[in-house]
Amino acid sequence: MAMKTTSSKKYLQLLIFQVALLGPVFCGKILVWPTEGSHWLNMNVMVQELIRRGHSFTILVSNTTLFIEPKPKTTEKFEIYNVPFDKDLPETLLNGIVDLWLNNRPTILTFWQFYKELGRLSVGWQKMNKMMCDAVLTNQELMAHLQGSGFDLLLSDAVTPCGELLALKLDIPFVYSLRFSPAFTLERHCGKIPAPPSYTPAALSELTDRMSFGERVKNFVSYHLQDYVFRSYWGHWDNYYSKVLGRPTTLCETMGKAEIWLIRTYWDFEFPRPFLPNFEFVGGLHCQPAKPLPKEMEEFVQSSGEHGVIIFTLGSMVHSLSDEKSNVIAKALSQLPQKVLWRYKGKKPETLGSNTRIFDWIPQNDLLGHPLTKAFITHGGTNGLYEAIYHGIPMVGIPMFADQHDNLVHMVAKGAAVQVDFNTMKTQDLVDALNTVIYNSTYKENALKLSKIQHDQPVKPLDRAVFWIEFVMRHKGAKHLRPAAHHLTWYQYHSLDVLAFLFTCTATIVFILFKCCLCCCRRCGRIAKRKKE
Amino acid sequence: MAMKTTSSKKYLQLLIFQVALLGPVFCGKILVWPTEGSHWLNMNVMVQELIRRGHSFTILVSNTTLFIEPKPKTTEKFEIYNVPFDKDLPETLLNGIVDLWLNNRPTILTFWQFYKELGRLSVGWQKMNKMMCDAVLTNQELMAHLQGSGFDLLLSDAVTPCGELLALKLDIPFVYSLRFSPAFTLERHCGKIPAPPSYTPAALSELTDRMSFGERVKNFVSYHLQDYVFRSYWGHWDNYYSKVLGRPTTLCETMGKAEIWLIRTYWDFEFPRPFLPNFEFVGGLHCQPAKPLPKEMEEFVQSSGEHGVIIFTLGSMVHSLSDEKSNVIAKALSQLPQKVLWRYKGKKPETLGSNTRIFDWIPQNDLLGHPLTKAFITHGGTNGLYEAIYHGIPMVGIPMFADQHDNLVHMVAKGAAVQVDFNTMKTQDLVDALNTVIYNSTYKENALKLSKIQHDQPVKPLDRAVFWIEFVMRHKGAKHLRPAAHHLTWYQYHSLDVLAFLFTCTATIVFILFKCCLCCCRRCGRIAKRKKE
Repeated sequence: MAMKTTSSKKYLQLLIFQVALLGPVFCGKILVWPTEGSHWLNMNVMVQELIRRGHSFTILVSNTTLFIEPKPKTTEKFEIYNVPFDKDLPETLLNGIVDLWLNNRPTILTFWQFYKELGRLSVGWQKMNKMMCDAVLTNQELMAHLQGSGFDLLLSDAVTPCGELLALKLDIPFVYSLRFSPAFTLERHCGKIPAPPSYTPAALSELTDRMSFGERVKNFVSYHLQDYVFRSYWGHWDNYYSKVLGRPTTLCETMGKAEIWLIRTYWDFEFPRPFLPNFEFVGGLHCQPAKPLPKEMEEFVQSSGEHGVIIFTLGSMVHSLSDEKSNVIAKALSQLPQKVLWRYKGKKPETLGSNTRIFDWIPQNDLLGHPLTKAFITHGGTNGLYEAIYHGIPMVGIPMFADQHDNLVHMVAKGAAVQVDFNTMKTQDLVDALNTVIYNSTYKENALKLSKIQHDQPVKPLDRAVFWIEFVMRHKGAKHLRPAAHHLTWYQYHSLDVLAFLFTCTATIVFILFKCCLCCCRRCGRIAKRKKE
Repeated sequence: MAMKTTSSKKYLQLLIFQVALLGPVFCGKILVWPTEGSHWLNMNVMVQELIRRGHSFTILVSNTTLFIEPKPKTTEKFEIYNVPFDKDLPETLLNGIVDLWLNNRPTILTFWQFYKELGRLSVGWQKMNKMMCDAVLTNQELMAHLQGSGFDLLLSDAVTPCGELLALKLDIPFVYSLRFSPAFTLERHCGKIPAPPSYTPAALSELTDRMSFGERVKNFVSYHLQDYVFRSYWGHWDNYYSKVLGRPTTLCETMGKAEIWLIRTYWDFEFPRPFLPNFEFVGGLHCQPAKPLPKEMEEFVQSSGEHGVIIFTLGSMVHSLSDEKSNVIAKALSQLPQKVLWRYKGKKPETLGSNTRIFDWIPQNDLLGHPLTKAFITHGGTNGLYEAIYHGIPMVGIPMFADQHDNLVHMVAKGAAVQVDFNTMKTQDLVDALNTVIYNSTYKENALKLSKIQHDQPVKPLDRAVFWIEFVMRHKGAKHLRPAAHHLTWYQYHSLDVLAFLFTCTATIVFILFKCCLCCCRRCGRIAKRKKE
């Protein structure tokens, strides 16, 4: 195909179109019900972009927040409410979850213990969420203030209940940001997206879209097991929601009123699966071109020469490792010709090589976008994976907890990563994994393929997220995208009443025909008998 | 919400983004397998836009085409191939379809006759299509020419088989343009989109997404009836495809290789339903702002004063009406205070009022976009409906055949149209319908709502269609959007083997437990008996 530059007339038309479309920006008032950790990091990118476009924000934060830093001098307003527990509670629960995954990964033997413990932690988490919700809803002064603020929209993370309830109390539309729920329970039951278990691996199942018969059985069971867990542990919100709204309702029915679900992935990461028009896949919205590195860091990177550098981080939740584990890792890194930038807050390992430098914090996105970066050692958090996808960097995954194992299964299936087991990892395993992704060119090629998919979209993910949030404010909702499935009961949705009716009709017809035949046969028999007699 | 203008910096960023995204245009070579009538009118809009962007086109047209006008001096090249039939065949089949709908609309009594006749016409149509396909594939000179042309992509209308076969023979990716197939048979079976019958009305069922129990039964039956029709009448293509490709295959398997399905509707017209990432809804891509009318026509429109004008057309397939019918219509129009522009090629009706002017051809889009236009009388073709949606004009529908009844059910459900029955229509019915949509303001409000939905999209439909066609050429496909469902058999897709396995396991366990219990009971019984003895 020959190349040709587009005429300036075309650009002028595009510009006019964009001015007409995005033109006069409406300055809306948005209330945020955030979720801690990486969830907030991602949502905050949307918040900052919307602020840049002239919207104002109020962010509801409890006084025991762990990761959200309310800054009094920022444009957004942090509304801090008091909860009847201290920081120990969320910290204990979070450490419990990390510990559960790191030390009790489900095997056939511990399968039930694992889910029992996950259930216990989940109940604890839900109780804490309910206290947070209560702290806002029963705070009459705060509620009066929120009611009087004239918000146009509420932005909520779907994994932390209450946002939707608050939106209904304030009579404003709401939009979700969501990475996933286990086995897509929220997306399926409350958002009504179909997920055929034959080719849609349940989130957290660690399966791909190409499954053997055994894997399809596992996936099918996964969906139903998670549905059971969902009903058991999340179901108690139903009474709470009914009580607050003063009419019988459920958590799911309330969540189903979301105008738009902004899903924090895209088809570079996801396996293609069905969705509905009010679902928008905006994965990678936080990614941006690399900025220059701090001088000292740039010098260290440049000193790697032709070998390049490796970026290593296990995320913001894992601060330190055992001496044994950190030495296994440091020894592996010391055997590589690359320079390594390791984000680590623990004790300096004894086996640390001269090629490895430890940092308290690293500009991860800028480093991944550096031309000398050869590989990324990651715990598999979605934000980090997306930065690697954006910049086309192959990965070595050392998943720790939550969705990280599942995330890395996606990257391995797409040929852009090698996975290493944190618990059983030996020095040589990590060396081999890094050599594979650096020197086997298919990993780099596949990472670049994913990068191209991420970059080659009609509209950038952040612009799409912003567009739909503004759309909901402009039109006071997006009802034209909401499926009528929300008006059906579960048996109507699955056409079970129709099937029962058609089965009854068929059975009745067959029964009548059978009786008629029987009657005819008997009569014929009688006539034949009489004739014989 | 206060208003604020976006800074020039923002526009500069947008411009840079657009340059980066659409920047250097690749001049691809595209082969087209078109479908007659309104299908071609819509596809040609994409063709012309892609030509404007520097791509070259070859359009395969038979020497008996009815509606595609091969112009030798245009930029696109029309490759005309000879078929072993003359124009009478497509004309007879087309008239048969129009006549079937107009005179034999399905009622309970004629339900089976209707489908039998539709089947007969469908077989005739398929035979003709196969002759067209053969005329290209067995023309060695033409095939050698096509093979040597180095096409980058084939653009095909999914309702006319052969395009996908030709693409496979030429070893190039292909993209579909499609309005619909009956009960979404092609989209469901070949494209793998799910369509839950509880809230997704089957195309042609004339149902909405809010169905009563009886309607859900009808919809459920509709899907299965159409599936049966699909298998009976389209299934014979399987042998043909297997023979041509030299390996066992099916029409559906071949169609499933489409990179992108460009569906010619959007959520202003459609009821929200599930779809897959390789489906793009580009309805309204042919709509554009109104251009000035010819001087004489503008004077006639202006003469209507405050009452405004009504635009009336029954589409390009219906040239004339019976004297009785045309007089019923003309009399109704004469009773209105509005001026009427009627596109009609038949005999001038005796009852024609002085307010009505008949035209051989009208600039429909420009008239619908005129500020004095109050209503649109339409047969309900998708292209016309979309022009009315685009310009926010309420409609009176007089559906004739094919999808027109179904289309108008959508518009009536969305509150932007009133439907009148062509066969039973009296003068007063049409007068009442027109007065309703003109003087009951909710119709105009709803039409404007649909118009806003059509206009307020992150990217215009035509630009999205063009983007994905160019994407497929840039990346030699769009495999990352293709669901793994294509690799499953029908029973695997529906998890029937998994269900059978789990049922067998459960039954075996229950059987063993039952046998164990029985054994225990007998043993206990025997012990008790012995003790008693």
